[in-house]
Amino acid sequence: MGQGPYRELSMDEKAMIKELSNFFYPKNIVVVGVSAEKNNLGKNIVMNCLKLGYQGEILSVGLKGGVVYGQRIYKSLEEIKSDIGLAVILTPSITIPGILEQCGKKGIRYVVIESGGFSEMGRKGRSIERACLEVADRYGIRFIGPNGIGVINMENGLAMPFVPIQQDLHPGSVSILAQSGGVGLSYLAFLAEENIGINKFVSIGNKLNVDENDLLSYLIEDEGTKIILIYLESFSDGRRFLEIASRSTKPILVHKSNRFKESAHIAHSHTAALFADDELVNFALKQAGCIRVNTMDEAMDYTKSLTMPPLKGKRLAVVSRSGGHAVIATDACAYYGFKLPSFPDSFLKKIEKRLRAHVIRLQNPLDLGDLFDLDFYEYIVEELLKRDDVDGILLGHGYRPKSPEQEASRKLVQRAAQLMERYQKPIGLFVFTESSEIEYLRRNSNIPIFSSPENAMRAFNLSYRWAFRRPIPIRPGRISGKDKKRATDILKKNEGKKAISLKDSLEFIKSYGIYTVEHMIADGPEDAINIWRKFNSPIAMKINTPLFIHKSDEGALRLNLNSEKEIIEAFEKF
Amino acid sequence: MGQGPYRELSMDEKAMIKELSNFFYPKNIVVVGVSAEKNNLGKNIVMNCLKLGYQGEILSVGLKGGVVYGQRIYKSLEEIKSDIGLAVILTPSITIPGILEQCGKKGIRYVVIESGGFSEMGRKGRSIERACLEVADRYGIRFIGPNGIGVINMENGLAMPFVPIQQDLHPGSVSILAQSGGVGLSYLAFLAEENIGINKFVSIGNKLNVDENDLLSYLIEDEGTKIILIYLESFSDGRRFLEIASRSTKPILVHKSNRFKESAHIAHSHTAALFADDELVNFALKQAGCIRVNTMDEAMDYTKSLTMPPLKGKRLAVVSRSGGHAVIATDACAYYGFKLPSFPDSFLKKIEKRLRAHVIRLQNPLDLGDLFDLDFYEYIVEELLKRDDVDGILLGHGYRPKSPEQEASRKLVQRAAQLMERYQKPIGLFVFTESSEIEYLRRNSNIPIFSSPENAMRAFNLSYRWAFRRPIPIRPGRISGKDKKRATDILKKNEGKKAISLKDSLEFIKSYGIYTVEHMIADGPEDAINIWRKFNSPIAMKINTPLFIHKSDEGALRLNLNSEKEIIEAFEKF
Repeated sequence: MGQGPYRELSMDEKAMIKELSNFFYPKNIVVVGVSAEKNNLGKNIVMNCLKLGYQGEILSVGLKGGVVYGQRIYKSLEEIKSDIGLAVILTPSITIPGILEQCGKKGIRYVVIESGGFSEMGRKGRSIERACLEVADRYGIRFIGPNGIGVINMENGLAMPFVPIQQDLHPGSVSILAQSGGVGLSYLAFLAEENIGINKFVSIGNKLNVDENDLLSYLIEDEGTKIILIYLESFSDGRRFLEIASRSTKPILVHKSNRFKESAHIAHSHTAALFADDELVNFALKQAGCIRVNTMDEAMDYTKSLTMPPLKGKRLAVVSRSGGHAVIATDACAYYGFKLPSFPDSFLKKIEKRLRAHVIRLQNPLDLGDLFDLDFYEYIVEELLKRDDVDGILLGHGYRPKSPEQEASRKLVQRAAQLMERYQKPIGLFVFTESSEIEYLRRNSNIPIFSSPENAMRAFNLSYRWAFRRPIPIRPGRISGKDKKRATDILKKNEGKKAISLKDSLEFIKSYGIYTVEHMIADGPEDAINIWRKFNSPIAMKINTPLFIHKSDEGALRLNLNSEKEIIEAFEKF
Repeated sequence: MGQGPYRELSMDEKAMIKELSNFFYPKNIVVVGVSAEKNNLGKNIVMNCLKLGYQGEILSVGLKGGVVYGQRIYKSLEEIKSDIGLAVILTPSITIPGILEQCGKKGIRYVVIESGGFSEMGRKGRSIERACLEVADRYGIRFIGPNGIGVINMENGLAMPFVPIQQDLHPGSVSILAQSGGVGLSYLAFLAEENIGINKFVSIGNKLNVDENDLLSYLIEDEGTKIILIYLESFSDGRRFLEIASRSTKPILVHKSNRFKESAHIAHSHTAALFADDELVNFALKQAGCIRVNTMDEAMDYTKSLTMPPLKGKRLAVVSRSGGHAVIATDACAYYGFKLPSFPDSFLKKIEKRLRAHVIRLQNPLDLGDLFDLDFYEYIVEELLKRDDVDGILLGHGYRPKSPEQEASRKLVQRAAQLMERYQKPIGLFVFTESSEIEYLRRNSNIPIFSSPENAMRAFNLSYRWAFRRPIPIRPGRISGKDKKRATDILKKNEGKKAISLKDSLEFIKSYGIYTVEHMIADGPEDAINIWRKFNSPIAMKINTPLFIHKSDEGALRLNLNSEKEIIEAFEKF
């Protein structure tokens, strides 16, 4: 696997990325599956686009015709005379191949299919999928879905989810790529609550045609996107994902669920996702420079940290309004290996001059428990940010909403946001107050509010790691076979067979110069004992028959056998 | 260390517990340090008691006299004619010994000192502490504090914090014992937001006289307390804590901060707390059957789980409104080793009969993404709770506030609370909606709302462990010396000395039959090299002088020396 500096995009990749921009910037759209009925979901797509102020024309198609939101519903695509940039389809799965055919005929090359009822529902769904792929192939159609909720682009107001989306989304730099529409919507809601702006959103569902790799390539090159948050239940092509992700100069947060065998079943019936070994996923994502998160909380804390100025060193100042919270905060700093430098007396005296009562023992962490003048907080925060030996601040504040302190506290939070920007050092702000007040602060300030000092420090830890990350692109591995003829011979010999014998499998692997463990085939217990003597070490035994393919699942693999008795027993139990 | 079944309380312990009840159930109280001035903190204590409806008389004392909340402020304790059950003092630290003296003369035996400015502020504070202890000893006064915010008892409305406490506290079964007033108040606020009732609260501050062990004994025996939540920055007497905690049949959650050396400094200047080895704390708390938590989040999740019916087995049903969340939820179950049994066809068919559309593939986890009839949710939850092969449910729901679903969703949550009680199986409920709606649900329902499936499963994991916990009291260890005479001789020989020599220390330890590492004393580098040769293995060297007591702190301990060069160098650097 070759590694090297930033790799130029190939012409193919550039063309693909240009093509995908049609999903995010279509000149107009048609929604297929709209009716004026109360429970019709298609009309929510129209409404979402209206609500977000989509700049292109929104056309509707539905068998029954009629009017929706003051616009005519066409009875078929054919009735529409103008050229269409993109079609969104939300009709029963069985109808989709036919509608795709109509799209093809009408020259629509970009389609989003939101309907469910495909391979996640079994065999019948799979055959519909094949039909869709066939039509798409014939007309050169690229489609996203099925079984997703489509695209949102905050730059032009395009909004395809078939559920009403909230109105508090605002434009920004985070883009979301989600396999599950529901989880994607949860992320949108979280970001809105944190006052973090969104750039693009795409839900890929069963990713039958356009997959996460295509879209990741697109988002990495997309100008509006600065942070990429991905929710996946499976990888379409793990190696390609890593190749693409590894060249990103933008942070990529990956929330990969379906981590355990127990989850594989539901994930498959949800988005037809297949299970991948989770440890392998861990290592691979790390190698590609992605940031893996395992919970939505973690994803949000990390996203918040990436919207702040980066933490360029490990030296923090801790300021807290309560001594107990200062202790907890310092524990959190120490846990992540941050340092709390001592400040020179001259600095502490400068601070002390502004104090009225002299009941605070100044140090780092600064316990400001006895201080009721919140303007002084601002002064301290600014003085700390100015210091060369401070890379960031962990700032704890607490107050009761609807108390006289509310106004000053809200002002302090706004001020912290400004100071953070001015000095380009991050402030990990945690506030102890009522949830409703935290919600107010989150929605109305440009600084992340962490729910605890531990979460703030977890986020700082990432910020620090990310500040020093440089992309090391993983290049496609080339197979440099040592004995290509031998490999070809083995493949030819086994053509048409369902499974290759153990001997041939190992030979095949060896023919590429890949090391395999020494092995011999035993015809019976005595033979096995002789082989064990010959190896002169503990042996593993497995059954050599094409009947069992997943040997370890079926108990047909025994490890660490090191006596005649064990070997005979193993044979008996096979 | 002897272990055995439940130990009867000794007479002394019973007497002490009876004595401490005077702090929670005084017939009346006097607050010392009250004035009518705007910024006076003492009067907040009076107001808190009034707000919570304290049933006894509340008297005030302050040098300037006057009137507060319609009541006369006495100028001294002597002016008060009636007997006083308890005094709360909030005056400058320097005045406290004198006020204690007045308390003693007036026959007040129970005092809470809230003022700061004691040993946490240095030498002068320590001498005031000594004076307080002397006066208390002379009059047989027991006092809580200094440097705390006193007691709250929701049973009788007693509320001593000098900051205004929120009015949304309600009576219940959780009692809080907190070293830090600020952290204690945060916990109170969290519990109020979770609609979890509080029984008692006590902030112990510098715990100069009454300490956490006394109060833990009290709370373990206290009828109103069912769950004990402790926040500590240090242990007054770790062994006694373990002895007391280990006999508890009530769950004890311990949030012990000041975990790292970095935090020791601030913790000491906050509540004069000393640092303890954190791993030791871990093991000891585990042995005593306590539940250790390291963050406030964890504490809240665990407290929530303990207010639910216990989880008596590991078999869960997962129900989720979105497929993606179902995958995430199933990951969380698998992570904690919970099992998701498959349900028989007969059961699934019974459920299916109630479905209108047949787009759901029924299994465990149940993805109810296409289901819009929330009454059906209730039906499913109840059917699952009835099953013998289901020990608890992980239930995920999501909706948009102010949408038509809000009312039905709120009803579903109430219904889940009722079903949980009826079937006595826990439901781990997580809801994806806006924070303000979550806050509404939390404050208005009798079922915990978890912020994610992971947090719910972490809590279930504890519930399961706790369901099977039986107290194994740790008894005070008796020393069964092998050579008591030798031990006594060494002690006699060293009487009056500040530190015992290395040789005598090791001899002393050995005399009790405790194994110590082989050692020899070297007079110089050459001698050391000879000893190293004799041991024939890497050696540790430490300086042998009473001048250095904390050898490893002062660099006077070297490990793993295994060459002449290293040994000579070590000698040179000592």
